[in-house]
Amino acid sequence: MTDTSPPRPAGLALRAEADGFDLTLDGRLVLRHRADDPCLFAGRGEERMEMYRGNFDIEDYVVERSPLRHAAIEAGRIAFSSRPGEPARLRLHIEGNALRFEAPDASINRLWLRVWAEADEHVWGGGEQMSYFDMRGRRFPLWTSEPGVGRDKTSEITFRADVAGRAGGDYHNTNYPQPTFLSSRRYALHVETSAYCAFDFRASDFHEIEVWAIPERLEFFAAPDFLELVEALSNRFGRQPPLPDWVMEGAIVGLKDGEASFARLETMREAGVRVSGLWCEDWVGLRHTSFGARLFWDWRADEGRYPNLRARIAALREEGIRFLGYVNPYLCNDGTQFPEAEAAGYLATDGMGRTALVDFGEFDCGVVDFTNPEAAAWFAETVIGRNMLDYGLSGWMADFGEYLPIDVHLANGVDAKLLHNRWPVLWAEVNARAVSSRSLSGDALFFMRAGYTGVQSHCPLLWGGDQSVDFSRHDGLVTVICAALSSGLLGNAYHHSDIGGYTSLFGNVRTAELVMRWAEMAAFTPVMRTHEGNRPRQNLQIDQDPQVLAHFARMTRIYARLAPYLRDLSQEAVQRGLPVQRPLFLHFPDDARTYAIQDSYLYGPDLLVAPVWRAGETQRRLYLPQEADWVHLWTGDVHAGGREVTVESPLGAPPVFFRKDTQYQNLFLSVIKI
Amino acid sequence: MTDTSPPRPAGLALRAEADGFDLTLDGRLVLRHRADDPCLFAGRGEERMEMYRGNFDIEDYVVERSPLRHAAIEAGRIAFSSRPGEPARLRLHIEGNALRFEAPDASINRLWLRVWAEADEHVWGGGEQMSYFDMRGRRFPLWTSEPGVGRDKTSEITFRADVAGRAGGDYHNTNYPQPTFLSSRRYALHVETSAYCAFDFRASDFHEIEVWAIPERLEFFAAPDFLELVEALSNRFGRQPPLPDWVMEGAIVGLKDGEASFARLETMREAGVRVSGLWCEDWVGLRHTSFGARLFWDWRADEGRYPNLRARIAALREEGIRFLGYVNPYLCNDGTQFPEAEAAGYLATDGMGRTALVDFGEFDCGVVDFTNPEAAAWFAETVIGRNMLDYGLSGWMADFGEYLPIDVHLANGVDAKLLHNRWPVLWAEVNARAVSSRSLSGDALFFMRAGYTGVQSHCPLLWGGDQSVDFSRHDGLVTVICAALSSGLLGNAYHHSDIGGYTSLFGNVRTAELVMRWAEMAAFTPVMRTHEGNRPRQNLQIDQDPQVLAHFARMTRIYARLAPYLRDLSQEAVQRGLPVQRPLFLHFPDDARTYAIQDSYLYGPDLLVAPVWRAGETQRRLYLPQEADWVHLWTGDVHAGGREVTVESPLGAPPVFFRKDTQYQNLFLSVIKI
Repeated sequence: MTDTSPPRPAGLALRAEADGFDLTLDGRLVLRHRADDPCLFAGRGEERMEMYRGNFDIEDYVVERSPLRHAAIEAGRIAFSSRPGEPARLRLHIEGNALRFEAPDASINRLWLRVWAEADEHVWGGGEQMSYFDMRGRRFPLWTSEPGVGRDKTSEITFRADVAGRAGGDYHNTNYPQPTFLSSRRYALHVETSAYCAFDFRASDFHEIEVWAIPERLEFFAAPDFLELVEALSNRFGRQPPLPDWVMEGAIVGLKDGEASFARLETMREAGVRVSGLWCEDWVGLRHTSFGARLFWDWRADEGRYPNLRARIAALREEGIRFLGYVNPYLCNDGTQFPEAEAAGYLATDGMGRTALVDFGEFDCGVVDFTNPEAAAWFAETVIGRNMLDYGLSGWMADFGEYLPIDVHLANGVDAKLLHNRWPVLWAEVNARAVSSRSLSGDALFFMRAGYTGVQSHCPLLWGGDQSVDFSRHDGLVTVICAALSSGLLGNAYHHSDIGGYTSLFGNVRTAELVMRWAEMAAFTPVMRTHEGNRPRQNLQIDQDPQVLAHFARMTRIYARLAPYLRDLSQEAVQRGLPVQRPLFLHFPDDARTYAIQDSYLYGPDLLVAPVWRAGETQRRLYLPQEADWVHLWTGDVHAGGREVTVESPLGAPPVFFRKDTQYQNLFLSVIKI
Repeated sequence: MTDTSPPRPAGLALRAEADGFDLTLDGRLVLRHRADDPCLFAGRGEERMEMYRGNFDIEDYVVERSPLRHAAIEAGRIAFSSRPGEPARLRLHIEGNALRFEAPDASINRLWLRVWAEADEHVWGGGEQMSYFDMRGRRFPLWTSEPGVGRDKTSEITFRADVAGRAGGDYHNTNYPQPTFLSSRRYALHVETSAYCAFDFRASDFHEIEVWAIPERLEFFAAPDFLELVEALSNRFGRQPPLPDWVMEGAIVGLKDGEASFARLETMREAGVRVSGLWCEDWVGLRHTSFGARLFWDWRADEGRYPNLRARIAALREEGIRFLGYVNPYLCNDGTQFPEAEAAGYLATDGMGRTALVDFGEFDCGVVDFTNPEAAAWFAETVIGRNMLDYGLSGWMADFGEYLPIDVHLANGVDAKLLHNRWPVLWAEVNARAVSSRSLSGDALFFMRAGYTGVQSHCPLLWGGDQSVDFSRHDGLVTVICAALSSGLLGNAYHHSDIGGYTSLFGNVRTAELVMRWAEMAAFTPVMRTHEGNRPRQNLQIDQDPQVLAHFARMTRIYARLAPYLRDLSQEAVQRGLPVQRPLFLHFPDDARTYAIQDSYLYGPDLLVAPVWRAGETQRRLYLPQEADWVHLWTGDVHAGGREVTVESPLGAPPVFFRKDTQYQNLFLSVIKI
């Protein structure tokens, strides 16, 4: 058939129709409005929001939701009202590939927009999603919060966490939401706002975007190819520096055992573990509460717990091993930094001029108010710069960011409910500023779980948050794949997770199998890092079991062997903004069978990794994309793509394939001898 | 102060105000409408409803909720639209004390009305509510369904029931909802509709009524006194016949042990139990499934399980003991009635002309279509009349009524979603018609858990549904008090419950204490009836424990001794529609401390009963209403009202008080010697 269709209009194009309009993006319909089927609804809601240690109960009482049936098309803008003759209640200005909102009606604080959808369309994104990569068929509130424990209302752990502290969560809970999605129709849509949003992908013929404010803009991105689309989003949201070379030397080993951590690290190295860093979150010392040992949130080395730490860090570095610590945006009120920050007016207040105190369980903290430029600068310079970087730290977990209480008063006068989602970005910026102040970008490495639009330009590495120490569908090993893939599409090139998971509650503890499966997945991610978990003594540690230790040591050597490949991927990330871990469809855009896959991934263009994520399994079934031949790494068996295969997957031989036509064949094959 | 206010206008009175109106009822404001604070919202919703064995998942996607700001007052009616000049979307016609709805805009299928409220107002009703008697502060969906197991999302039992079959329920789930409430402002409001409704009492300044249809009418009732208000509601909704005299002779003993039931009854009588009836739900025989023994839903005596049943019923009656059975509106498709009903076209269909089959767990049933007058007549005459009444039954549990599947097609052409709430009333009517056809009204006694507006005029006795066999706050003993009080205000004079509760799941089993506490409450209710529960063999039965049996026997004698008082209450119910069990405020309307009490009740005007409803307690604290002196039944101690007292409450001496000025003093005092 000869293609006789006219060339498609470029960018957003508005076409008036009887009783409405069509808005196209590079020729694809994105908004269709008719008086009897309007695309825009506006009104008022009264939200109820309760926070309990980073977990939110949120409910909206919708007072008004009026269809804006009448659209008057004027030069470069559309004026919406309920009917002809009524003054415009909302206007959309077409500005390049964006729609800017203007609301003449000041009573509006809720907006619902229906974006045209096709029945077989797939959508991805939404920030860092842990449960569902393909978001079609579900509704996703977008609000940064604790991710939840279990995240599955049918699981006993979730039930218990809910009862104990409303902490169970659900499929949509995430530390890092972002109101951006990509469509299989080769376009992306971003809502520029920090207000509470929800993306509702349940309808067959539209996607509904709900915003609890008038957003700044809707931004559209179109490309003929998914790779270009991802590149465009990375250009928009910011790009990370290259992964530091030192990271690729081996694993970052997490120990929080005070001085004993150094000896344990030595033992692990003697067992053959390749180590790039020692991460001690307890470098700030401990606080003993009835819940167990907590960290002391004053963000200075505790040389009681770590004698001569500065010298030991320097000595470790001589051996090519970096030291990493921990920090978060709170200051405990019995520490040394709190009075300094309070005296300078750097802490958020309660509206009566008093410092707002947040209860973290037997200790209270102040919230450093990053909307105050002086406070942000002080935290970057004094707390991170002087206490951490100058002390010799090469990286840290920059924890939290999701917890901005919605009732504090901030220096810039913006409602904390509106700043809540943006808080992780401010927090990332403070960390990045400190790194930059010491010219250590691309060398010092901090990692965050919280995020929102724009975190990409500040945070060099995501970590997947606090998985449960298990194989569960919604809070176990498999969820970090979904997290890497969804966040990766939005310009977050580097992702990693706690090997063995973190959260151990209600008798749920690590098995050796879990730790080994997690480690062998992590070997094929940008960063390998271990964590002792929230209850180290009740859970298996890697150095406690010879089999686990030997397996881990081998995986660190495999990881380090892949460094040349990883370095190339990192360069590609710097240049194009492509993530290291990629959904299969990114390189196989025409193979629709790949669109919903979230338990395997491409590690760069040439490796396909399908982690074993269920307990007790020693085989895995997976789909190999069409139009390529795939070589099973451990056996050399060649499989044609376009079908499912089942491979033996004993511990130590995770399902990994490389493209038969890869340039890295020799490198990949060298791995099997390790 | 001299009262110089003008006489209050009678009935509904409309007064135009700038930009709106006030509607008063006997002088009290009930609707206040202003353009900037409208009382009416209308629009469209798309509901998602899923039924799983009588449990519903219901969610509404509200497409439109438009404030109808403009109210044009015309003769006797109010025309609502969004703004002046727009055609009316809804009209309210004032007709007597009712507002009739008219919807010129056919697109409307959702309606929200704000009724004026005062901050300290209390509201009651909503049908038969199990968790909250005073409904202020919460939202109550009104949809007949299974009541739920545990009914408390923080309880392990609810969690397990939810996981096993979405059966856990919540505070608002009830077999018998009714869109009617009474206010402490001495008025009542009823919504005449069978559509899904919700009453939202969370706001301080309005009550919001949500209806998923255009309702027929809003009906208002006003009275200077709560007693008159209840009388007015009973006049409106219908009245029960007197409680049969035979019932007052003792307990109705529930046994489902086949022929052995007779011998067990004899043993109980020998132990001093006063018996008025033997209730054998297994009179229809059993079906053995993997879940255990179920009844055989064919509604005929199983003379294999009960040899010579007809003669035994007659013999029992000679001894003054009635026999009761069980029936529900389904017919199993392997029974004898099903083919007869199917051939006659009496069963609901699936829309393709096929008989709709409902899965009840290893057996399927047809739904007798009571909207077909011939089917209703057949069920009343053949199934109940011939198989049950003519066979000698004097009563039965008329089970279910909440389960009309929302996707069946009915003879009268009405959407099953609209008939769902009304189904219990149709079911009650079929039962009542059968009783009436044998002129046995006031003698034959059936009891139902399901209900809706109008069930009052057909069903002679409510039972409180399937409590868990425990003391739990939301599904245990205490909930049947709330059920009796809320339903009693709406014209249901007689209420009772399964002594010892019914639902035993997940290892939750009856204790002797529970059975005894329940029995001693039941002695002070209109009907004492036992139930073996859903798992008889795993649960304590009254005749298995000598202490329990002796305690029960004594309680049946106390119950029987109170017959003269109960008979007077029954006469009062017939004459005025007042319930036997009454909230304290009904006789103490000016004592606001009584408004929220739901764990004690007046048994008629002269007895106050405060059951011990927590495990392990042998004292009870309770409030005695002011302006009366109260005599503690067991000790004779006199307490002045208007304060809380604590009384010793060992097993066998439930907290019961009588008014010092009662005419029944001698009768009451005679009880203590039993």
